[in-house]
Amino acid sequence: MTERPPPLAPGSVIGILGGGQLGRMLALAAAELGMRCHVYCPDPQSPAFEVAAAHTIAAYEDESALKSFAAAIDVATYEFENVPATAAALLARLTVLRPGVRALEVAQDRLAEKIFVRGLGIATAPFVAVDTRDDLDGAIAEIGLPAILKTRRFGYDGKGQAVIRAAGDGDAAWQAIGGTPAIVEGFIAFDREISVIAARGCDGSVEVYDPGENRHVDQILSSTIVPAPIGDAAAAGAVRIARSILDGLGYVGVIGVELFVETLGPETVLRVNEFAPRVHNSGHWTSDACVTGQFEQHIRAICGWPLGSPRRLADAVMTNLIGDEIGTWTAHAADPMSKVHVYGKTATRPGRKMGHVTRLIPGKARPGPRGE
Amino acid sequence: MTERPPPLAPGSVIGILGGGQLGRMLALAAAELGMRCHVYCPDPQSPAFEVAAAHTIAAYEDESALKSFAAAIDVATYEFENVPATAAALLARLTVLRPGVRALEVAQDRLAEKIFVRGLGIATAPFVAVDTRDDLDGAIAEIGLPAILKTRRFGYDGKGQAVIRAAGDGDAAWQAIGGTPAIVEGFIAFDREISVIAARGCDGSVEVYDPGENRHVDQILSSTIVPAPIGDAAAAGAVRIARSILDGLGYVGVIGVELFVETLGPETVLRVNEFAPRVHNSGHWTSDACVTGQFEQHIRAICGWPLGSPRRLADAVMTNLIGDEIGTWTAHAADPMSKVHVYGKTATRPGRKMGHVTRLIPGKARPGPRGE
Repeated sequence: MTERPPPLAPGSVIGILGGGQLGRMLALAAAELGMRCHVYCPDPQSPAFEVAAAHTIAAYEDESALKSFAAAIDVATYEFENVPATAAALLARLTVLRPGVRALEVAQDRLAEKIFVRGLGIATAPFVAVDTRDDLDGAIAEIGLPAILKTRRFGYDGKGQAVIRAAGDGDAAWQAIGGTPAIVEGFIAFDREISVIAARGCDGSVEVYDPGENRHVDQILSSTIVPAPIGDAAAAGAVRIARSILDGLGYVGVIGVELFVETLGPETVLRVNEFAPRVHNSGHWTSDACVTGQFEQHIRAICGWPLGSPRRLADAVMTNLIGDEIGTWTAHAADPMSKVHVYGKTATRPGRKMGHVTRLIPGKARPGPRGE
Repeated sequence: MTERPPPLAPGSVIGILGGGQLGRMLALAAAELGMRCHVYCPDPQSPAFEVAAAHTIAAYEDESALKSFAAAIDVATYEFENVPATAAALLARLTVLRPGVRALEVAQDRLAEKIFVRGLGIATAPFVAVDTRDDLDGAIAEIGLPAILKTRRFGYDGKGQAVIRAAGDGDAAWQAIGGTPAIVEGFIAFDREISVIAARGCDGSVEVYDPGENRHVDQILSSTIVPAPIGDAAAAGAVRIARSILDGLGYVGVIGVELFVETLGPETVLRVNEFAPRVHNSGHWTSDACVTGQFEQHIRAICGWPLGSPRRLADAVMTNLIGDEIGTWTAHAADPMSKVHVYGKTATRPGRKMGHVTRLIPGKARPGPRGE
């Protein structure tokens, strides 16, 4: 435990880089605690602007705008992991940036992330770094087929990835990802993907939510089911992994850790796929089903408040409303046990996350996070 | 059941008269549903402004500003019952006002309110109208002593009231309330005061929250304890009373009904003290403990959405943070089961509601509202 700095009082100003739905929901949670939010985003149509006390429309590379922003806030955070390194460094120097630069550096680079996780003694998929087209053939030989080529940087929702099924797929895959530094990962024959949302406070305390199972459609998260149908030992293992990553990074804030659950004979193996140094889509259910939701938990952490309880009061199924699916809101609104969330985006586009709905199923809640 | 009009889609604009904490929490709940809020308030420091997409600073008597406001919104509502009748009538004519003018007319006048409630066959304290100083003596003779003289209009938190203990107190009491039209009420030797928060949708459907017990300090609500420690029959009676008032008014939105619980021999008698045609301080616990909180429920109702479930997932104790009590926020923040709400008011004044905290006590929740 490190010494706890004085917490930020209500009325303090939280700077949020990024004005999408995550920034919006962070701002709403912050307002309940009496905090004021200043959202920084280049998009004039940012949905977070409408619920924030102040906003700045500027590029993340605009040093002058970043300086003014830093001068106007008491703490800075972000809703996306691809914050440019120069912006992060500037904010860390001029104000308090939480989570810090180290978490961004690791999370922005799949290679650094995998090396970091493995260094904690946590399993990942097998991987090999690929810097050139020549490296790729050697990597395929080492990992075996099928395999996945993934850019080291800026990948999300399946973007920046190419599957390699046969040795002859190398050229196409290398072209598909644009010939940038990458890694080759081995396929994992996983039973399911789960994620663990967890938080670490300024005092080093950690709280972990119950793991949820994630289902994807077209490589975009479609739904999260809580609790994940895994054994207690696996759930406890996932909680330990989240804690280990948070402590290893000296992290402050909420993190989302995605894991593969694989059955190997009598054994269940958990492998970290990736983590996001921010509130996470697969943690949206916590706002509706837990004493403290992930957005409030993140605000508490970065403001130096003690963490709230992640205790779950109901089972839950979170379903994303993507693109035209937002048109189903009337059906969800008609279900009295469903919590409808709409992000206020002005344009509907295919693949764009427009909202989500959490269906609550009370009466089966356990007394606390398993494995705690 | 009346026919349900089409619900307002996300992106619609909700106009809120009043920019205090109730308006702020309404705006936050509306934003989760993807609604945009336009807050109208004469106070430039209104805490609701910071979380609303738009705001108007103008007097409630400013007809021109009200007209512009009406043109900019899809539905109008209010956070306080003393909306001037002319403003309410104007908005009801130019846009949709929910709850409607009738609810305001009845709730703004203690005499009309009491007559309305009694007309539904619901008990109240004994009362007599007092229009002049001369009336007062007759009223005292009829009601008996002790009694309470209350202005018909603009009373709240014990303001506009004077206790009459002896026949000679008449002059002082009449002066204390400013010699305006009033009523004299008989004292009720009640065991406790409870309140019921309920909602009625555009389709006539009604949902009622579990009754809570209210404790007052210096005539201001100090805490609400849920569930109220009353029998199931009394709880069911309170639910029936709320439903009867909602139906009687043809109401749309959330209402707060305060009742006295009195033991008369073997019988428990419920008497309506007053009701507020709006979200209510004694319903703040619902946002933290129920599937659908009162603020979301009100937004759902006025937007023509089906009502959400009022199901309670935990027991709860809500405590107001009044004046300097806001300074205790660090202690509440350190309790992981407490939900801290701070209203973002810039100045702390004695008696001013600055925030509240809801302590959740899970594990004893019942399957649904009693009496339903």
